[in-house]
Amino acid sequence: MDYNKLALELHEKYKGKITTTLRDTSEIDRTALSAYYSPGVGAVSQAIAADPSTLPKYTWTNNLVAVISDGSAILGLGDLGPKASMPVMEGKALLFKHFADIDSVPIILDVHTVDEIVATVKAIAPSFGAINLEDIAAPKCFAIEERLKAECDIPVFHDDQHGTAVVTLAGLINATKVVGKTLSDCKVVVIGAGAAGTAIIKLLNLYGLTNIIAVDSRGIIGESRDDLNDEKKALLAYVNATQSGSLDDAITDADIFIGVSKAGLLTPELVARMANKPIVFGLANPLPEIMPDVAKASGVAVIATGRSDFPNQVNNAIAFPGIFRGALDNGVKTITNQHKIAAAEVIASLVENPTEDEVIPSVFDERLVPSIAQVIKP
Amino acid sequence: MDYNKLALELHEKYKGKITTTLRDTSEIDRTALSAYYSPGVGAVSQAIAADPSTLPKYTWTNNLVAVISDGSAILGLGDLGPKASMPVMEGKALLFKHFADIDSVPIILDVHTVDEIVATVKAIAPSFGAINLEDIAAPKCFAIEERLKAECDIPVFHDDQHGTAVVTLAGLINATKVVGKTLSDCKVVVIGAGAAGTAIIKLLNLYGLTNIIAVDSRGIIGESRDDLNDEKKALLAYVNATQSGSLDDAITDADIFIGVSKAGLLTPELVARMANKPIVFGLANPLPEIMPDVAKASGVAVIATGRSDFPNQVNNAIAFPGIFRGALDNGVKTITNQHKIAAAEVIASLVENPTEDEVIPSVFDERLVPSIAQVIKP
Repeated sequence: MDYNKLALELHEKYKGKITTTLRDTSEIDRTALSAYYSPGVGAVSQAIAADPSTLPKYTWTNNLVAVISDGSAILGLGDLGPKASMPVMEGKALLFKHFADIDSVPIILDVHTVDEIVATVKAIAPSFGAINLEDIAAPKCFAIEERLKAECDIPVFHDDQHGTAVVTLAGLINATKVVGKTLSDCKVVVIGAGAAGTAIIKLLNLYGLTNIIAVDSRGIIGESRDDLNDEKKALLAYVNATQSGSLDDAITDADIFIGVSKAGLLTPELVARMANKPIVFGLANPLPEIMPDVAKASGVAVIATGRSDFPNQVNNAIAFPGIFRGALDNGVKTITNQHKIAAAEVIASLVENPTEDEVIPSVFDERLVPSIAQVIKP
Repeated sequence: MDYNKLALELHEKYKGKITTTLRDTSEIDRTALSAYYSPGVGAVSQAIAADPSTLPKYTWTNNLVAVISDGSAILGLGDLGPKASMPVMEGKALLFKHFADIDSVPIILDVHTVDEIVATVKAIAPSFGAINLEDIAAPKCFAIEERLKAECDIPVFHDDQHGTAVVTLAGLINATKVVGKTLSDCKVVVIGAGAAGTAIIKLLNLYGLTNIIAVDSRGIIGESRDDLNDEKKALLAYVNATQSGSLDDAITDADIFIGVSKAGLLTPELVARMANKPIVFGLANPLPEIMPDVAKASGVAVIATGRSDFPNQVNNAIAFPGIFRGALDNGVKTITNQHKIAAAEVIASLVENPTEDEVIPSVFDERLVPSIAQVIKP
């Protein structure tokens, strides 16, 4: 199917994807207007002024997530600018509504430095119940999320980092069961140290993995490198930093390959260097680091990709709707590492009998949102 | 009726007033997800990157107004802060939807200087099709609107100024017909030189009135005053600036009194000083400058107020839904003075036979939005 053509047609036909409606569907007469607007609404304003914590009790912020981007890393397309990011952010708002019944508003930013983005998002933060950062380029995305988490009184979550990391961890919990290995003992190679790769490395380390090798376009990220930026230097604390060399060196005897890099990077020759029963998560989009049929023919035991047309899709929409549902409903102010691990474990548990073709539940599994929401607690 | 009690009950019952829904109400299956989100949505992003003017063709911005406030002048309640302004802004979003089927999102700002507000609104402006500024205190509201109009490529409209001015002008066009006077020849006294008063003065002057006397808490605003701030100095160009003295002096022989000041300010004794068949617009809320029964007993020929429980309600919701409907539908980038006058004339024309009890159409008149929208053209 030509999804591009269909996308252009549907977007033009419906003139976008979301719309607003009124919660109270009874007639809006003079009485209703006087209660929902002047003069009655003044009493609600005064109640909130007296106790600002009642904001979610009286306004739609209790169910509202802002999807915020500056358009600097749109899907796999790169920096196309803020306006070009709008259909993706509106699409994310559609996912929030469809999967978790969360109201969501796309906010695209025409500012691009860390300071400007932080200042703008902080300035509008009282408008929302939570903030989903999206498609903001690495490395600035790290500082932006960190500062906003510290400075806002609502949850801030960069889904490109943590959503991918949570679903990846969930998939690895089940994939190691399938191949009969202990995840914390596995040697993992992560190729690509952008937003997703960095978050995956940190979450796996937190989950107890110590033999993680990070690789970027210049080779293994280790202590001997003298070309690392601050973000990659910070990554050394989470990986096996004594290593150096190329991808060839890194992948030797690896149990798990995680690619957030580029199409076709993982050749059968490289797979042959891995340990027995290798697990491969090839998450490059739309074309993975290795196609599933090639992977299987090369001896890969479990292959996951970002695509919906193969088994084991690592799709952020498996995680973020339930995470935000829980944060909003349970009054969570900060989404923590413990929340991410709990979410990954819940997601993994929904696959009762993991097999090579099912280590990750379907994004359409209706148990996902309520099950995940339940573990996102203060 | 106790609107305060009802307002608190309804807001708590419905947990706010607006919600988002999906435009395409058919099933969201894998195919729809692939078109509305990755990978198909990438084609829409690329189309917008290639030609940013297609943003409204493919996204909900074509029908989207941001209602933006910093909470510094909430209704008649003053500066209660951003969070307390949310129910009012969400109420405005409800009015946009109800009256004009316009999607609207409340954005409350936790910044308060002109520079900060301008920077924040500019940064998020690409997210919307138009901007409605609301409940921002005078005098900073003037500079904020002026700068945003100049620096944004979408319409920016401070409704507290211009909505009130448009409906007031519409009412005066009909009221002068009722009393058999020529509006441009009338002596007008405007009490209160805040957002609404200033805009009313400027619009009336633009409509040809020259004998306008502006009065603030210290008396007539004229050239002889040495205590005027920059905004009030700028107002001298629109009024009969040679005058000086008190409200008593100003009101002598006035044909029209417009109050955007405080309850009870217009006494029967002051009415007695006015010209014959005086017209009074007492717009203070919730209690007007003079109650309609007192006004009538004092010889006022036509009395208008801000209240829905008396005839002749000056309600911004008569004007702004149609103005924004027209701006969005007709691709208007700037709402001009000519648009405001055209809107006022259309509103006035909807009252076929003006009488003392009907110089302004009802806010529920369904002809309003389409009629006004038609005259908001590039």
